[in-house]
Amino acid sequence: MTEPTRAGRDAPPTEELPATGEAVVVTATLDDLKFGLDGIVPAIVQDATSREVLMVAYMNAEAVRRTLETRRTWFYSRSRRELWPKGETSGNRQRVRDVLVDCDGDALVVEVDQEGSGACHTGARTCFVRHLDV
Amino acid sequence: MTEPTRAGRDAPPTEELPATGEAVVVTATLDDLKFGLDGIVPAIVQDATSREVLMVAYMNAEAVRRTLETRRTWFYSRSRRELWPKGETSGNRQRVRDVLVDCDGDALVVEVDQEGSGACHTGARTCFVRHLDV
Repeated sequence: MTEPTRAGRDAPPTEELPATGEAVVVTATLDDLKFGLDGIVPAIVQDATSREVLMVAYMNAEAVRRTLETRRTWFYSRSRRELWPKGETSGNRQRVRDVLVDCDGDALVVEVDQEGSGACHTGARTCFVRHLDV
Repeated sequence: MTEPTRAGRDAPPTEELPATGEAVVVTATLDDLKFGLDGIVPAIVQDATSREVLMVAYMNAEAVRRTLETRRTWFYSRSRRELWPKGETSGNRQRVRDVLVDCDGDALVVEVDQEGSGACHTGARTCFVRHLDV
């Protein structure tokens, strides 16, 4: 989230280049995540190579833990109220290269190598194929 | 969302190439959006050129309407319960090139040209600078 706040608006960038010119890698842990009242955060799954946004799903703390441990995506189904490993039945698994946390700790970007036909339950490469018209 | 469903798993891809080799553009309207109980959907803002994910915020129906009309991003603040035009005070506005809707109509990808220093309230280019550690 990037809602304007008085404290944050004039704050310096979180990531800066040191004098050596080498990029600083800033890390976060599970404790930095701020799960919502329902105990979940949105996870944006992005193709690590093409940078295409493949899908959006949700993770609770346990889904994040399993994702980090197995390096495969695990999500939390809000309707079924259970964890599900992506691609277990379809073979469309996602190998996790990196997980990024936003400034507020309430959203994740999961960079993956997509296996199989794609990320979408329709079989498409991405869930985002429709363009919104006015 | 791409939770596996019995009906959807074996369905053909939503977007296919016709015989002419020209890509089909699939469109959606506001009526296709499925806002949650709180009347909002997550909006993933992506740099249209670099494809970097810049931020995640939320839109209600009115925010989507204003975004399409003005071609600038409008969001709904869950904490303040009001609409806010991105970059109004900071100058870090986002010019909207395209809005994509996912298979279930409950998430948006907004492709933008980012103005100013960046999308994050910290002044950084993107909100996603921290890497999640095990």
